[in-house]
Amino acid sequence: MSDDAQTPEGVRPEVAAAVGDWRAYVEAKMGFRNHWYPVRFSNELAEGQLITLQVLGEKLLLKRIDGKVYAIRDRCLHRGVPLSRKPDCYTKDTITCWYHGYTYRFQTGELVNILAVPDSRLIGRRKIQSFPCQEAKGLIFVFIGDMDPVPPLSQDVPPGFLDDDVMILGKHRVVNSNWRLGAENGFDALHIFIHKDTTLRHFRTFNFPIGHTPLPGAVQVVEDADGPKGVIDDFAQHKPIWDGVIDGRVVVRGPRSQQVQGTSASVGTSIWLPGVLKVEQFPLPGLTQFEWYVPIDGKTHLYVQTIGQQVQTDEDRQDFASNFESIYKPHGLDGFNADDIWAREVTEPFYADDYGWVDEMLCEPDTTILEWRRLASRANRGVQTPQDLR
Amino acid sequence: MSDDAQTPEGVRPEVAAAVGDWRAYVEAKMGFRNHWYPVRFSNELAEGQLITLQVLGEKLLLKRIDGKVYAIRDRCLHRGVPLSRKPDCYTKDTITCWYHGYTYRFQTGELVNILAVPDSRLIGRRKIQSFPCQEAKGLIFVFIGDMDPVPPLSQDVPPGFLDDDVMILGKHRVVNSNWRLGAENGFDALHIFIHKDTTLRHFRTFNFPIGHTPLPGAVQVVEDADGPKGVIDDFAQHKPIWDGVIDGRVVVRGPRSQQVQGTSASVGTSIWLPGVLKVEQFPLPGLTQFEWYVPIDGKTHLYVQTIGQQVQTDEDRQDFASNFESIYKPHGLDGFNADDIWAREVTEPFYADDYGWVDEMLCEPDTTILEWRRLASRANRGVQTPQDLR
Amino acid sequence: MSDDAQTPEGVRPEVAAAVGDWRAYVEAKMGFRNHWYPVRFSNELAEGQLITLQVLGEKLLLKRIDGKVYAIRDRCLHRGVPLSRKPDCYTKDTITCWYHGYTYRFQTGELVNILAVPDSRLIGRRKIQSFPCQEAKGLIFVFIGDMDPVPPLSQDVPPGFLDDDVMILGKHRVVNSNWRLGAENGFDALHIFIHKDTTLRHFRTFNFPIGHTPLPGAVQVVEDADGPKGVIDDFAQHKPIWDGVIDGRVVVRGPRSQQVQGTSASVGTSIWLPGVLKVEQFPLPGLTQFEWYVPIDGKTHLYVQTIGQQVQTDEDRQDFASNFESIYKPHGLDGFNADDIWAREVTEPFYADDYGWVDEMLCEPDTTILEWRRLASRANRGVQTPQDLR
Repeated sequence: MSDDAQTPEGVRPEVAAAVGDWRAYVEAKMGFRNHWYPVRFSNELAEGQLITLQVLGEKLLLKRIDGKVYAIRDRCLHRGVPLSRKPDCYTKDTITCWYHGYTYRFQTGELVNILAVPDSRLIGRRKIQSFPCQEAKGLIFVFIGDMDPVPPLSQDVPPGFLDDDVMILGKHRVVNSNWRLGAENGFDALHIFIHKDTTLRHFRTFNFPIGHTPLPGAVQVVEDADGPKGVIDDFAQHKPIWDGVIDGRVVVRGPRSQQVQGTSASVGTSIWLPGVLKVEQFPLPGLTQFEWYVPIDGKTHLYVQTIGQQVQTDEDRQDFASNFESIYKPHGLDGFNADDIWAREVTEPFYADDYGWVDEMLCEPDTTILEWRRLASRANRGVQTPQDLR
Repeated sequence: MSDDAQTPEGVRPEVAAAVGDWRAYVEAKMGFRNHWYPVRFSNELAEGQLITLQVLGEKLLLKRIDGKVYAIRDRCLHRGVPLSRKPDCYTKDTITCWYHGYTYRFQTGELVNILAVPDSRLIGRRKIQSFPCQEAKGLIFVFIGDMDPVPPLSQDVPPGFLDDDVMILGKHRVVNSNWRLGAENGFDALHIFIHKDTTLRHFRTFNFPIGHTPLPGAVQVVEDADGPKGVIDDFAQHKPIWDGVIDGRVVVRGPRSQQVQGTSASVGTSIWLPGVLKVEQFPLPGLTQFEWYVPIDGKTHLYVQTIGQQVQTDEDRQDFASNFESIYKPHGLDGFNADDIWAREVTEPFYADDYGWVDEMLCEPDTTILEWRRLASRANRGVQTPQDLR
Repeated sequence: MSDDAQTPEGVRPEVAAAVGDWRAYVEAKMGFRNHWYPVRFSNELAEGQLITLQVLGEKLLLKRIDGKVYAIRDRCLHRGVPLSRKPDCYTKDTITCWYHGYTYRFQTGELVNILAVPDSRLIGRRKIQSFPCQEAKGLIFVFIGDMDPVPPLSQDVPPGFLDDDVMILGKHRVVNSNWRLGAENGFDALHIFIHKDTTLRHFRTFNFPIGHTPLPGAVQVVEDADGPKGVIDDFAQHKPIWDGVIDGRVVVRGPRSQQVQGTSASVGTSIWLPGVLKVEQFPLPGLTQFEWYVPIDGKTHLYVQTIGQQVQTDEDRQDFASNFESIYKPHGLDGFNADDIWAREVTEPFYADDYGWVDEMLCEPDTTILEWRRLASRANRGVQTPQDLR
């Protein structure tokens, strides 16, 4: 670990050693390895198209061939140049390095030829790293790791996401913070304070306390061997706070409506490995928000925001798509979540040199966050390190 | 020290170890801790106004409440975000963190509430770092440190600066060099060479050698327990050099006027902890220039330039203010000192990696600078390090 | 070495230790010390003119005095400032530091005076580093090092370059890659693949395989004590490949002309210490291209491109100059070599942190490159390190 600490993606070993049972979480600056991550929507990659992207520090080349998506590392084995800088695709299935003719098959990563050295002993014996791809619910997922066999996608998404009758729509954007600040911002019950001025509050009628604290029993850890691993925080078992008081005087008050049951529309928030949040009944009753914080490198993440709704008919699907474009996306994913994105980016500097993990001063409701850190440290399938990129 | 060396503000321990009796000076890349520093002019902070600034690496939040200035660290204890990024001031005396409602009292730094967790055990038991403030001569001074009791301001300013009949006016600007290059440039008797073309020379009549060397007895170290600590260089006891000679030929000559006594108008220059210069009879006879080199971080400093004059009447005050604006500031602080600022910034790269402190090749008149380095290493109240910022 | 690894120009010791018999080559990120390097064309420095440039990390000040070129380090001994930032040249032979008057003689580097301290004991006893200069074939060469006596220039240029009847013309530009990626790109027989679309192919008739592999005996190492040290690759003893095949199908084919003998117009390529390539019969038959990859720092090099032709008469010289401007420069040095420059810059990131030297996967024809690395590690006169710049 000490060598890594000198690289931009390395982690200070003295900090990792200081946090006890969530050490792996501190070390996972670039995310957890051997997990499935959504990287693009399916409709962003047409047949035969080649795109590049970065996830967990890996620079990937994705191509759709005969309908199926394949991903290989965008770096020639020979002299390390990006294949994408001048793509030479002489056949549908292969890419040839523009520099010296090393040729790879997309489906396997196999070195199938070196054009000017057709009898090289390397041919057929070397592979560029390839990454399993799978499409589901309109998203392209990539498995970053080398585990064999590859675990099923169903273990890496929140319960309900893959349900047959659920339709998913969404968007993505790059956020300038570490992925963990995204995950914790989303799961954090107390951060509702930053949304107190959201325009969403004026669009819909709901109770909006300035914060709420979990009561005993609110938090549940899910760690079944064959399913997704996560922490569920049941907002119905929270104590909401409506009035903010300073020096004995109420200085801020959460809006409260008689027409709505419960403390807020959300009945529960849960966070799942490898870093995906599920918010029930949000942004409106009947909807579920699923959002991923996909590490790009140690200091940026791809924020993949999706909303799911149960649909039965084509009309249901059309209604959902129409509402998504006109309401859920502008008011929720853009408007409401803009506060979250801003908060993550402002928090980034404090954690950038790792010391934030030991210098922070958590308070009582943050125990839910600590449960997540412990679960993630325990149940992940590996920590991505700079060595994994060599 | 070795950990620090990897940070931008750290100091190479092998360099600090190599300089003998001025080691602390080399270590003080970010300045000396537990001293008073001027950070703004009083009229730059109105009642109720909130400003941010950085000094000795500390990011501060200053507010004037009921006429008095208070300073706290601009970083929430909870998740380390800058309070200033979205200031929520619900009462005159407090600031509430925009993220999760941690609320601090400006006067003490005390955590007086967490809005959504009103019964947290942290409340009343934790403090954000606060810094003593004091105003004098139209300047706001902040004490960066944690010494208790706080030493009086009078020990950290040059003799005469606080005199009742002295009126002070000035300006400040940011210079892209370490603060020590500012201090040494100012105190350095030999650097007058860079001013040989100054327009000030044409504005006033004075003798201007190309350099001068201290004779025995010129330098006096002041180190009284209860007063300011500094080094005085008496220019009256210097040997001036009027002619620059190369290969036996005079190539440059300092202007010499019969009408002026002494080697130059200045009768003495002195440098004081924590880094403030006093130049007598400058920029014109009857005036005194006091200037601070306040560390912002390891590679920039706030250059606080002031001029003092004895005043008895309101007319005296008006005359001084008028002359300051029309003469002293444009010809002195702007024109003359622009050469100094330029020289410091050009010198910065050589010292930026610390090696300059051992690779430099001082000559005989630089003994005055060595006296200052030794005095500063002996009499400072602490060295600011990256750890002090955590 | 471990201290250096923390600087931008330092080399990771674990990588250097891993490559066996070409360790010095890996360590020579800033080039080989105690060698001659071309830095400018003679007509770029007029009588009395002062220029600055950087080579092997050294910032130099060059001046032509009475026809002869002199080079000194552009950094005052006193406080380390660049003399060039405000040049004060009071005599033809000297430069005076603008800050405190330290005065140096160009021819020797000797500190000849400190203007305001004319009796300093440093005068006549200290020297700024000076560097031997020599002009040949219209180029200014500088010897970076401290070897005494200085080896003759003839040992550091390819055979034939200094021949009396050879006329040399050229140009130079800065390339954003380490110098070794320049040297290896030039010497690499396989990289011809990147030139397959060059416009030069349409301008002249020549056979242009997609690559060629050295047969036994093609490579010859030259290591005579009194001459230049280099590796020669004889293209006449190469096996050319005309067809690129993927999955049994020809996908790309090199153009072949019946009118031209041999595999290509070049009959041989050779690389010489300290990093200079000779390409025979190129860019056209009857010409020789000599090109240097002169380290500027660890991540940029000066690409000095020259073409030589045997000339007997003034008419020959005029013809060559005319053809150089209208044909060889635009089609060869600009057009053809632009592909090479692009390739080097794209390769740079993989080697920038040194790991590329162990993570690369060379193939059979790259043995010629390994010969060069070994020869360079064995026969160089020293490795330039960050310490050499202090």
